[in-house]
Amino acid sequence: MKILVINAGSTTLKYQLIDSENESVIAKGLCERIGGTGQISYNKRDNTKGSETVELPDHGVALKLVIERMTDPNFGVISDLKEIDAVGHRVVHGGERFSSSVVVNDEVLADIEKCSDLAPLHNPANILGIKACMSLMPGVPNVAVFDTAFHQTMPEKAYMYGLPYEYYEKYKVRRYGFHGTSHSFVSKRVIELLGKPAEDTKVIVCHLGGGASISAVCGGKSVDTSMGMTPLEGILMGTRSGSIDPAIIEYIANKEGKNINEIMTILNKKSGLLGISGTSSDFRDIDDGYLKGDPRATIAFKAFCYQAAKIVGGYIAAMNGVDAIAFTAGIGEHDALAREEVLSYFGYLGIKVNKEVNDKCHDEALISTEDSKVKVYAVPTNEELAIARETVMLCK
Amino acid sequence: MKILVINAGSTTLKYQLIDSENESVIAKGLCERIGGTGQISYNKRDNTKGSETVELPDHGVALKLVIERMTDPNFGVISDLKEIDAVGHRVVHGGERFSSSVVVNDEVLADIEKCSDLAPLHNPANILGIKACMSLMPGVPNVAVFDTAFHQTMPEKAYMYGLPYEYYEKYKVRRYGFHGTSHSFVSKRVIELLGKPAEDTKVIVCHLGGGASISAVCGGKSVDTSMGMTPLEGILMGTRSGSIDPAIIEYIANKEGKNINEIMTILNKKSGLLGISGTSSDFRDIDDGYLKGDPRATIAFKAFCYQAAKIVGGYIAAMNGVDAIAFTAGIGEHDALAREEVLSYFGYLGIKVNKEVNDKCHDEALISTEDSKVKVYAVPTNEELAIARETVMLCK
Repeated sequence: MKILVINAGSTTLKYQLIDSENESVIAKGLCERIGGTGQISYNKRDNTKGSETVELPDHGVALKLVIERMTDPNFGVISDLKEIDAVGHRVVHGGERFSSSVVVNDEVLADIEKCSDLAPLHNPANILGIKACMSLMPGVPNVAVFDTAFHQTMPEKAYMYGLPYEYYEKYKVRRYGFHGTSHSFVSKRVIELLGKPAEDTKVIVCHLGGGASISAVCGGKSVDTSMGMTPLEGILMGTRSGSIDPAIIEYIANKEGKNINEIMTILNKKSGLLGISGTSSDFRDIDDGYLKGDPRATIAFKAFCYQAAKIVGGYIAAMNGVDAIAFTAGIGEHDALAREEVLSYFGYLGIKVNKEVNDKCHDEALISTEDSKVKVYAVPTNEELAIARETVMLCK
Repeated sequence: MKILVINAGSTTLKYQLIDSENESVIAKGLCERIGGTGQISYNKRDNTKGSETVELPDHGVALKLVIERMTDPNFGVISDLKEIDAVGHRVVHGGERFSSSVVVNDEVLADIEKCSDLAPLHNPANILGIKACMSLMPGVPNVAVFDTAFHQTMPEKAYMYGLPYEYYEKYKVRRYGFHGTSHSFVSKRVIELLGKPAEDTKVIVCHLGGGASISAVCGGKSVDTSMGMTPLEGILMGTRSGSIDPAIIEYIANKEGKNINEIMTILNKKSGLLGISGTSSDFRDIDDGYLKGDPRATIAFKAFCYQAAKIVGGYIAAMNGVDAIAFTAGIGEHDALAREEVLSYFGYLGIKVNKEVNDKCHDEALISTEDSKVKVYAVPTNEELAIARETVMLCK
C-alpha cells in the first residue's frame, strides 16, 4: 500500500508518501506560509529537489499542489493520484476521546473539533488537512493518529493534577502527554531489542528535541509522561520553560506589566535553552558554548540534562525499576554529550556508558556497556513511518 | 541561656521560650487574630493553660501581652523579662542575601525588607515581630533564621528555571526552597544516626505536612528541593496545587473568567488534597476516605504519595545514590500509610519497610528493616528548637 502521511500545522503542511511494503519513502516535502504567498518544496523522480514560490491561500490549495507535483508527468514520483491507498494524519490532541488511531468519519471529525479547545493552535490545522484530503481524494480513507493517544493508559495518580476536581469534570484539565507516536514507536523498538515479552518490560523513552518529553512505558503501556495538558510542561526545551513554580506567572506579569497571554507567549517562545543562554534554542549551539566555557550556555546545558535526569529518576521509581532507557529525536539521537551527561546521574543503578559507541552514535545503537545493569539505547524515531503503519493497520 | 523563639504571621504570633541548657520548653503560646479583637493562649507555671479574648491592635501589643503572661507574678513561668537572653525569629524569605542565620541590626532589617517582594505575605509580618522585640526588649539580641537559608547551597542547575535569564538578574526569579530550618534539623539528625562523616552522606528529607517539600542533602548540604521561588511549587499539598502545567493558569482563567490573582488564590487555598477530594485538606481524612474506598480520596492519597515518590526518585538520581530517606512533619511523622505507600516505589533499590515498626511509629525510629539497602527514618522535626540553637550559636 502507498500511504500519504500528512502533518498539517497552522501555516505549514508536511507530507511523506510511504510504500508500506518496504517502508520506503517515495515522496517527501513541505508547504510553508499557507495563507498567502508561500513556498512548496518536494522531491522529484530523479532524486533532485524542487522548490517554488506559489500562492497558498489555504490548506486545500497547498494539498492540491502537493498532489500535482507528486503526479507530474515529467518529474512526479507516482503516475496517478489513485496509487494513494490511504492518508494518515497527525492530530495533536485527542483528549480523553481517542486512545488509539481511528478511521475518520463525520462523527470522528466532530469529536476532533471538540478537542480543539485543548490545542487551539494545532487541532484546527489538523482538521483543515483532513478536510482537504477528503475533498481532493474522495473515497480514500483518512486515518487520524493522535499525539496524545499512547498516553491514555496513564493511571489517575499520574494524570490528575492537584487542582479542584471540577476543573477535570468541567474542562477536562488533566495530564495528556504528547509525542505519543514517537514514544510508542521507540518503546516498541526497545522492547524488540530487549527480546522479552512486552508485559515484562520497564522502559523509559527520552524524546529530546526542540520539544522534549520523557515517558515511562511499563509492560508496553505509557504509565507517565512529562508533558501535561499542553506541551509546555516538563523539562525545559528549546524555547519552552517546562515546569516552573506556578506563582512565577503572576510575579512576572506584575513586574513586567504584562497579561497572562503575553506571559504564556514568553514561556512558549522565549524561554528554555534560548531564555537561559540568551543566544540560541539549538542544542548544538548550547554544546558549543558549554565546551567553550560560556557561563550561560553551561547553565542551559547542565539544567537541561539535570532536569531530564530527575524525570528519568522519578520514572524509575514510578515503575519500581527499569530495564532500558532510550534516547530519541534531534538531541537524543545525535547529541553524545547530552546523553552522557544525563546518564552520569545513574551510576548508582549500575548504568555504564560505552563512551566509544556513544560518542559516534547517530543511529540505532546500544550505548551502554555489556556489563551495564540497565540497557541504554539510541533509537531514531520516525513519526511518519509510525503514522503510516497505524494507517495500514486500520485500512488494509 | 533562655531563648524566646518568635514565629510571626500576618495575624498570628507563635512563641516558645526554650532553655538552651537542657533544650526544654519553658513557655509556649499563641496570639491569634492580631489586628482586632483576638485571642492569647499560653501556659502557666503549674502546667495548666490560659486563654483570653483580648484587644490585639498590632504585633507590639501582642508581644507585650505575651511577656506579661510569661512574667505574671501569680502564674508566670519566669520572674523577670531580663531572664530572656536572646530572641530567635523565623523569617520566611532571605532571598540570595542570607545563606545563614544572622544577628539583626538596621542593615539586616533593611535587607529583609528588600526580600519582602518575594514573600509579600510573610516577610512583613516577620519584620513586625522583630521590631516589636527590639522596642520591648532593648539590648536583647534578635537573630533572624531564614526558611530559605539552608537551600542556598543549591547549584545553578537546580535553582535556575528555564526562563529568560533577565528575570533572574532583574527580579531574582529562581528556586529558593522553604522549610529549610526543618530540612537542616532533620538531615543533621539523620547524619548523626548514620554515624558517618557528613561529607560522605546522601540524605533525602521528606517534610510532609500541610505544606510539603522534599530536599536532597548531599554531604550535609542542600543540593535541591521541591518548593521553588514560592512555597507553591512541588508536590500537591493540603490546599496547594504544587507543580502544574503553567498553561493551565491561562486556560482556567479564560474558562472561569478570573484574573491571575484569583487563580493564584485557588492554587494556594482550594487545590491539593482539598481540591481533589472535595472534602478535606487533612491527610487523616484522606486516609479514612481511601480506606473506605472513596474514589476521590483515593486519587488524592495515591497522587500525593506518587508525586512524593517521583521527587524522591529524581533526587536519588540528582545525588547519584542515597544512604537514607527521612520522613518528618505532620504526615511524615504520623502517617504510616503514606510512608508505606511512598516507600512501595523503591523495591528496586532494595528498600524494605519494617511494617511493624512503621505502623506504630510517631516518634524517631528506623522504619526500614535491618537488611534494607537504604535506611529509612521517621524523625520529628522541631523548627523552634532549631531556631533556638541557631540563636544560641550566634549570641553566646
